[in-house]
Amino acid sequence: MRADLLSDTLTRPTAAMRDAMARAEVGDDVFGEDPTVRALEERVADLLGHEAGLFAPTGSLANQLGLRLHVAPGQELVADQMAHVLRAELGAAAAFSGITSRSWPSERGLLDPAGPMSLVTTGVGPYQVETALVVVENTHNFGGGTVQPIGAIREVRAATSPLGVAMHLDGARLWNAHVASGVALRDYGAEFDTVSVCLSKGLGAPVGSVLVGSAEAMAQARVWRKRYGAGMRQVGILAAAGLHALDHHVERLADDHARAARFAAACAQAAPSAVDASTVETNIVVLDVGAVGWDAPAFVAALLEQGVRTYAVGPGRVRAVWHLDVDDAGTGAAVDAATTLLRSRTP
Amino acid sequence: MRADLLSDTLTRPTAAMRDAMARAEVGDDVFGEDPTVRALEERVADLLGHEAGLFAPTGSLANQLGLRLHVAPGQELVADQMAHVLRAELGAAAAFSGITSRSWPSERGLLDPAGPMSLVTTGVGPYQVETALVVVENTHNFGGGTVQPIGAIREVRAATSPLGVAMHLDGARLWNAHVASGVALRDYGAEFDTVSVCLSKGLGAPVGSVLVGSAEAMAQARVWRKRYGAGMRQVGILAAAGLHALDHHVERLADDHARAARFAAACAQAAPSAVDASTVETNIVVLDVGAVGWDAPAFVAALLEQGVRTYAVGPGRVRAVWHLDVDDAGTGAAVDAATTLLRSRTP
Amino acid sequence: MRADLLSDTLTRPTAAMRDAMARAEVGDDVFGEDPTVRALEERVADLLGHEAGLFAPTGSLANQLGLRLHVAPGQELVADQMAHVLRAELGAAAAFSGITSRSWPSERGLLDPAGPMSLVTTGVGPYQVETALVVVENTHNFGGGTVQPIGAIREVRAATSPLGVAMHLDGARLWNAHVASGVALRDYGAEFDTVSVCLSKGLGAPVGSVLVGSAEAMAQARVWRKRYGAGMRQVGILAAAGLHALDHHVERLADDHARAARFAAACAQAAPSAVDASTVETNIVVLDVGAVGWDAPAFVAALLEQGVRTYAVGPGRVRAVWHLDVDDAGTGAAVDAATTLLRSRTP
Amino acid sequence: MRADLLSDTLTRPTAAMRDAMARAEVGDDVFGEDPTVRALEERVADLLGHEAGLFAPTGSLANQLGLRLHVAPGQELVADQMAHVLRAELGAAAAFSGITSRSWPSERGLLDPAGPMSLVTTGVGPYQVETALVVVENTHNFGGGTVQPIGAIREVRAATSPLGVAMHLDGARLWNAHVASGVALRDYGAEFDTVSVCLSKGLGAPVGSVLVGSAEAMAQARVWRKRYGAGMRQVGILAAAGLHALDHHVERLADDHARAARFAAACAQAAPSAVDASTVETNIVVLDVGAVGWDAPAFVAALLEQGVRTYAVGPGRVRAVWHLDVDDAGTGAAVDAATTLLRSRTP
Repeated sequence: MRADLLSDTLTRPTAAMRDAMARAEVGDDVFGEDPTVRALEERVADLLGHEAGLFAPTGSLANQLGLRLHVAPGQELVADQMAHVLRAELGAAAAFSGITSRSWPSERGLLDPAGPMSLVTTGVGPYQVETALVVVENTHNFGGGTVQPIGAIREVRAATSPLGVAMHLDGARLWNAHVASGVALRDYGAEFDTVSVCLSKGLGAPVGSVLVGSAEAMAQARVWRKRYGAGMRQVGILAAAGLHALDHHVERLADDHARAARFAAACAQAAPSAVDASTVETNIVVLDVGAVGWDAPAFVAALLEQGVRTYAVGPGRVRAVWHLDVDDAGTGAAVDAATTLLRSRTP
Repeated sequence: MRADLLSDTLTRPTAAMRDAMARAEVGDDVFGEDPTVRALEERVADLLGHEAGLFAPTGSLANQLGLRLHVAPGQELVADQMAHVLRAELGAAAAFSGITSRSWPSERGLLDPAGPMSLVTTGVGPYQVETALVVVENTHNFGGGTVQPIGAIREVRAATSPLGVAMHLDGARLWNAHVASGVALRDYGAEFDTVSVCLSKGLGAPVGSVLVGSAEAMAQARVWRKRYGAGMRQVGILAAAGLHALDHHVERLADDHARAARFAAACAQAAPSAVDASTVETNIVVLDVGAVGWDAPAFVAALLEQGVRTYAVGPGRVRAVWHLDVDDAGTGAAVDAATTLLRSRTP
Repeated sequence: MRADLLSDTLTRPTAAMRDAMARAEVGDDVFGEDPTVRALEERVADLLGHEAGLFAPTGSLANQLGLRLHVAPGQELVADQMAHVLRAELGAAAAFSGITSRSWPSERGLLDPAGPMSLVTTGVGPYQVETALVVVENTHNFGGGTVQPIGAIREVRAATSPLGVAMHLDGARLWNAHVASGVALRDYGAEFDTVSVCLSKGLGAPVGSVLVGSAEAMAQARVWRKRYGAGMRQVGILAAAGLHALDHHVERLADDHARAARFAAACAQAAPSAVDASTVETNIVVLDVGAVGWDAPAFVAALLEQGVRTYAVGPGRVRAVWHLDVDDAGTGAAVDAATTLLRSRTP
Repeated sequence: MRADLLSDTLTRPTAAMRDAMARAEVGDDVFGEDPTVRALEERVADLLGHEAGLFAPTGSLANQLGLRLHVAPGQELVADQMAHVLRAELGAAAAFSGITSRSWPSERGLLDPAGPMSLVTTGVGPYQVETALVVVENTHNFGGGTVQPIGAIREVRAATSPLGVAMHLDGARLWNAHVASGVALRDYGAEFDTVSVCLSKGLGAPVGSVLVGSAEAMAQARVWRKRYGAGMRQVGILAAAGLHALDHHVERLADDHARAARFAAACAQAAPSAVDASTVETNIVVLDVGAVGWDAPAFVAALLEQGVRTYAVGPGRVRAVWHLDVDDAGTGAAVDAATTLLRSRTP
């Protein structure tokens, strides 16, 4: 493969990260005795300005543990129509936590406070559904790595907080938002009751996510994590990779962003209707190949023949994601392949 | 009370209906031995052009039984943001059936095919949520008794049917849609896999709804009805009221519609921003009292002092519903009280 | 049919009961405005010495609402292996309330305190399941109408109460236990946090059960009842039948008991291994037809040819139930048919 | 700590195992591209004679994925009263899969076919719960490491298979059963539809379990694993530890068994009523300290003061577990401490 842009989940641990894992001090985390995972949980909580953290095997589980802290069966969460928690966690919030949901439309997943505020409903008596939670995803995956404006987030928080409605941040790629926007992680963290972050996407750890929130909330989530079958034992092996990633792989996300921007600019030049390069803020590019007459699966297949792997996120939309294992050469290969295909259908 | 417009669920059985109940032939319906409930199920199925029917104690349960026939845990249903199944069934689809949901915005609940089609997603592989069901509500309760255009329904059916996506009609007030639009019940029924209808709202029966669909689907729903704790015994007592209502209370819904229109017209004259009388098609009027500076709960309280009971369906929206137990005099009282209040805040 | 002993759920309302229903004062119970259902709820609560009551369409739902008041997801209930809540409510406690369960073996469903006490577990930390509820069924349906000794009940209560474990009484046929044992309803009620009773079995009402407990618990259960789709409207029609049954059909259960005893004695004489007549305390007789070489379904079919309907509750066990619609003549017919069949296989 | 007998989950990876992890070839397992986890899944499936395997982060999840393959909501599983799936998975089968359960009593968890066969019920029509699954645990954790006789397993299989009832083996410690009994892993595997095994207990891997079954069942379980939030990425890091454990840590379980036997024999000599040494077959010893007048928590605390950590599995029962990190010296320390305490209360 010349460039594997399928997802930033593909990253393989570096030699230094492997070494950190091999040397990790471990214990049985079900009994709270793994020092490395505790160090990671404390560190992430501190970065986000929350009391406590909890390791989870995936971002999906970190999200699901967060959601059920806030929403009782019969209450609802609201999120945008393309949110990962609604689209890509296999309905787990409903299937396992009995959480009903409504959604608002958005442009590229970008948070407009009018969206959630058109849905949030409280104080309507025992027989109508109460909104208990607003979920914000930052950056927004299916929206194309969209960075959520801190001002919009604060506006929603100010409006919902007096109503007793909680906010959860799906921060699987919050690191990218932080690097792209310059907004401090703590400033994002301050607006939410719980935040999930992933160590296994842009940061390059093999496995792992962390949920943060109040100490009491994390204690509850710890029991539920066991119920989900995710109470792992000597998990410091994995946590060590996460700590290494926090030390070495955050600032370098700017390189991924620059490569994605290069790709987007080239594609926009080849086919202006396929992408607006000014909207590519982080490591994800979504091409509207349908706008130039391609089926997404066909475009993905044609790229793959050129050694470039991408992903169809809709009938006419193709996603490409930059990460630790894609360098300038790979980016160049992707630019060549994609622009050739786009031009082939553009008059 | 001079006019109780809280809901059309308030209707009390007439003397003739009570007589029909008292004479009903009954048996144990858990064993399939109640002739009256079987007659009712067959009659409603026939009216809607479906194979079989199933009695349910409420419209909510008839809906819930329908939804779970079509949507497996991990799949989603889509509906408009104000749909009864999302807003007023206490999250049962998620809590009991593990069904996740997304929603589209609408004007007065009116079905625009672009709404559902912006959400319906199929064939996206094992890790994204598949849409299994579109729910349409006709008439639309929180939208203000809106009649859904049969053309729009057919358009959604034509687009979703080839994708293997099912359609369920929440027809709690389908009788009103039928009487207002002149569209045959069977014509509505033809576009849906399952339909629920209520006997206890405009039709005036004390208790009861019916779900219709294929014989196989109803057999499954019958077992789930028992699991929900709704396998009642000599339920012909209630079915007899439903049969009576079908004989005597369908066509008279036109009277309710005329009275609601009279009320809406008077309110629109008093405060044009509060209601567009041309949108009042059936027995429900939603006043945007917020537009003239009233809080909905305050308006509801002020009306109640005048002997007119209504319902706050949002912070600035008040719903009034006509039914069997509200006559011309009551309507006049409501007109007087509401117009006075509206004028008091209208410059 | 000469004698329909399938179940005491078969009873058809008497003329007087139909008259009471036809004259019932009603309102919309979802809004708490039905005077007849409120009268019934208060009366049953008072009979059992509890604060409040809640009408439910079935005994299954009354049980399910009770169970979920006491048991959170991740906690367990314990019951005997043949309990109705484990065997005949279609797994609703797990499917809808996420309640896990364990069971103890019993003789004829008879409560031996050693059974529940071998299972009840509390204070074992966050990672083992805590017992939250013991369920007792009185009389015991699949056990053969067994009356639970008040002493055994009190012993379990005394042992579990200090542990914070609740107790629920499935009293679908508590009226029979009361009439057979002479123990006051209040004395049974005093030992339980919640009690369900049915109006539609021995008491002869067409539909209806009542759950009783604290006012706060019933308020919660009322919201859940709506979520289950059982928030009915002018339900006073049904409640009126229940009130009538409480006035007229409780003491006469002694007649059913006497007829069942007559049948059991005759069967025991014909085939001593099939039934121990001394264990038939109420209106249910379970014959161990397997002990004399009959398959239960074959025995049931053979009886039905003689106009006597019964029910196979296991591969070799047949249940016959007496009720309002079976008189002495019907009992005689059942005796003749059953003893003939039993003798045909007894050497 | 002189001997940490809390659990065999405490084992820390050896240097050689850490080295295997550091060198592991990895890929994104959500996309099926991790060669090491695939090798592990294939190897475990082959060992147990099944078509396919699926890695899971814990034995609990491997069990839960197995259970839900066989049991639909409304059906039941049956297991012994002390089974891990009923006692120590936090009610997950009910909470997440809607599975209702019943249980039979047992001696030390030992499988007597009469137990499950007293409960298994099929063919009883739509309104009674059907048994869909029998769960066997081997070795039996809370029973004290009990090895299940292959003959008893085969007897249950022969009786349930014609009824369409499935069997799942909770083989968290199946390796111990195999080593202790000499029965081949494949011979155990042959009697079950699905089997879970753990790599993180006696085998000493830091994290990981494997479920095996048919290829079709594992494909379904793979999607559900993602829904549970356990679709990890470069999980070959963990799988490498599992492969290493299979190569190096199976046969040495005999050492753990010998040390546990030494401990049990010493305790039995000190207090014959506390343990029957002949029942200690593997690496777990359960002392009935209640029989000699100790509270389990007090006994555990007193041992801990001597540097020996154990676990109270009931009010009077204390569990000690041998594993990779407890040697002869540690065993000697445990013997000294425990026998002293036992003698202090034994006349």
